[in-house]
Amino acid sequence: MKRSRVDKLRDLMGKKEVDYVILGPTSNMFYLTGFTDEQMERPLLFIVSRDEAYFLAPKLYEEQLSQTGFSVLSYHDGEDPYSLTRMEKRSRVALDDQLWTAFTYQIEKRFSPTLSLASSLLMELRSRKEQEEIDIMMEGITTAESSFLDFLNEVKEGLSECELARKLEEEFSVRGVSPSFPTILTSGYNTSMPHLRCTNRKVKKGDVVIVDFGIKFKGYSTDSTRVVSVGSPNPEVKKVHDVVVRAQEEAESSVSGMKAKDVDRLARSVIEKEGMGNFFIHRTGHGIGIDVHEDPYISKGNEEAVDDNMTFTVEPGVYIPGKFGVRVEDMVLMKGRVRPMNSLSKEIYIV
Amino acid sequence: MKRSRVDKLRDLMGKKEVDYVILGPTSNMFYLTGFTDEQMERPLLFIVSRDEAYFLAPKLYEEQLSQTGFSVLSYHDGEDPYSLTRMEKRSRVALDDQLWTAFTYQIEKRFSPTLSLASSLLMELRSRKEQEEIDIMMEGITTAESSFLDFLNEVKEGLSECELARKLEEEFSVRGVSPSFPTILTSGYNTSMPHLRCTNRKVKKGDVVIVDFGIKFKGYSTDSTRVVSVGSPNPEVKKVHDVVVRAQEEAESSVSGMKAKDVDRLARSVIEKEGMGNFFIHRTGHGIGIDVHEDPYISKGNEEAVDDNMTFTVEPGVYIPGKFGVRVEDMVLMKGRVRPMNSLSKEIYIV
Repeated sequence: MKRSRVDKLRDLMGKKEVDYVILGPTSNMFYLTGFTDEQMERPLLFIVSRDEAYFLAPKLYEEQLSQTGFSVLSYHDGEDPYSLTRMEKRSRVALDDQLWTAFTYQIEKRFSPTLSLASSLLMELRSRKEQEEIDIMMEGITTAESSFLDFLNEVKEGLSECELARKLEEEFSVRGVSPSFPTILTSGYNTSMPHLRCTNRKVKKGDVVIVDFGIKFKGYSTDSTRVVSVGSPNPEVKKVHDVVVRAQEEAESSVSGMKAKDVDRLARSVIEKEGMGNFFIHRTGHGIGIDVHEDPYISKGNEEAVDDNMTFTVEPGVYIPGKFGVRVEDMVLMKGRVRPMNSLSKEIYIV
Repeated sequence: MKRSRVDKLRDLMGKKEVDYVILGPTSNMFYLTGFTDEQMERPLLFIVSRDEAYFLAPKLYEEQLSQTGFSVLSYHDGEDPYSLTRMEKRSRVALDDQLWTAFTYQIEKRFSPTLSLASSLLMELRSRKEQEEIDIMMEGITTAESSFLDFLNEVKEGLSECELARKLEEEFSVRGVSPSFPTILTSGYNTSMPHLRCTNRKVKKGDVVIVDFGIKFKGYSTDSTRVVSVGSPNPEVKKVHDVVVRAQEEAESSVSGMKAKDVDRLARSVIEKEGMGNFFIHRTGHGIGIDVHEDPYISKGNEEAVDDNMTFTVEPGVYIPGKFGVRVEDMVLMKGRVRPMNSLSKEIYIV
C-alpha cells in the first residue's frame, strides 16, 4: 500500500513537472513511508525522484529506517549530508510545507533549485481518504469520546483549568493514546480566547467550560469540542450555544462538490442573522487526517470544492471578549452529503 | 527582562546588518516574548525590526497575545496577512530556523528578501544562559529525576516498552509536567537503535532497558538517559556500560573555552581505545535550554568554543546492531569547568 502512494505521487510529479519531492519527518513522510519523528536539527529527509525513493538520515536512524523497506543513505555527525544525495543542481524541487527553514536554506544554497511546495502534490492525495484511513479515524474518535465522558465525572469546582486538562489527558493515557495537540480547556471569561490552552484559574459554580480535545490514534488525529457547565448554564451562554449549534447543523447540510467558502457561509449566516457575526472570529473548520489541520480549509475565500472522502471539522464559535465564548466542534466525512463522525450529543454537559 | 532580550537582539542585528528578524511560534519566540504555540498553517509570526517588535497573528490569537505587552497585527481568515506588515521589499531578513518552509516560501515570493537564519543571531544570546534560566533547568532536572526514581518501582517483566514509557510519563503528569520529547524506552536487542521510541516488545528477565527521558519545565527542557537491567546485568552489558561511563567522565573533565570537537574527542577516544569506535554512531552531546537540542553541538568538526554558562548534554553510547546498546546521558553547565546538573547515580539500575 505504501509503495503505491509513492507511485501516485510520481504520477502527479510528472503532471506538475517536479523532479524531486523532499520531505522532512512530518505527516507527509508518515503518509508515504509509515515513519515519522520529531523534527530535529539534523536533516532526516525522504527524497522521491522519478526513479528513486530513499531516506537521507543521521547514522543513528539507519537500522530503524531500513525496516520501512526504503533504502537509507546515512551520514555521521560532522559529515556533509547533502553530498550523499544524487540530486542535480537547478532542478525543480517540491519541499515539504512543514520542513524547517534551516533545511530549505541549505538546499537552496547547495542546489539552486526552482522551488514549490509539496502540498500542491501531496494534499491532492491526502485530502481524499482511503477507507482504511476513515476506519482508523472512526476508531480514534470512539476512544477520544469515551475519554471525554469518563473525564466529565472528574470535573468539579476548585480544580484549575490545567488540572482538568491533565485529567482528560490521563484518560487518554490509560487508553494508550496521546493528545494530538495540547488540550484546550478554559473556563469563565478565559473561554473568549479560542486558542488559550489552560491557566491556573480555578473552575467555579456557574462557569462555562470549553473542552477542545483530540488524540493521535495509529498516526491519525481527532479534534472535537464540547461545552460544559458547572451547575446550570447561564441563560446568555445557553442562547449563544443554541445559535452555535444551529450554525453547525446548517454547515452540516452541505453536499459533495460545494465550495469550501460556501460551507463556511452556511454557518456564518446563521450567526450573522443573530447579530453575532463580529464575534465569530475564525473559519468554520479545517480538514483533518494525519495532521490536525490540513486541506480542505472551510473558510471565506476558499474556492476549493469539498469532495467525497474528505474529512473535516465543523466548528463555529462565538467569542465575546472579557465575557465568554462558545464553540462546538465535530468531525465529518463528505460522502454525497455530510456524514457525522462523532457520536457525542451537542448539548451543554452539566456537571 | 523580555524587553531587554529584544534590545540585545537589535544590537546583533545592527552588527550583522539584518533589517528584520521573523520568528515562528518556536523556542525563539518564547525566548523573546514568553509566548509560544504549536506551529500551524496560518502565519503566527513575531517580527523585529530596528524600531518595532510585533506579532502578526490570526484574529483568534489577538486577545491572548496582547497580554504579552507587544503589539499585535491580526488578520481574519481569508485576509492577506502579509499586507498588514510594514516590511520593505528586498530587505535583509533573518528567518527562524524552525519556521515552516511554507511561510518562508510566501515571504520569499512576497518580499524578495536576502535571507539568513535567525540562529546566527539568537543562538549567540540563547546559548549563554542567564542565572534565572539555569535555576529553572535545575528545578526541572529535580522533577525529572524524582519521576524516574518512582517509575523504577513499576518496572517489571511482562510489561511492554510502550507501557513502561507511559508509566514514566504518568509520573511526569502527576507532577504537573509533560515530556520534552516522546520518551525513548527500549529493551533487549531494540536498544541498539538509539532513536527508536518504544515498541510492543515485552520486557523480560535479563533484558537491558534504556530510558532516555526529559520534561518541559517552565518552558525549558531536560534530557537524561539511564540504563536499567531486569535482574542482574549480562557481563557484556556491564563491560560496555563501564566504558561508556568512563567516556562520559572523560568528556566531563573539559574546561571552559575548549572547542566542542575536542570535548567530543575526549569521550570518543576512550571508546575507540576499547575497539568500540565504530559502535559510537552519534555525537557526544548537544546544547539544551528551551529546545531539547540547540547550540552548542558537541560533535566532530564543530570548531565552536564551549563557553561559560553554556548548558549541554554529555551522552556517549555504544550500539551493537542486533545485540544491544548502552547510553548514559547527563546535563552539565560549563562554568570554568564542567558542573554536573544531574544528581542520579550513573550506575546500572537493577530492578
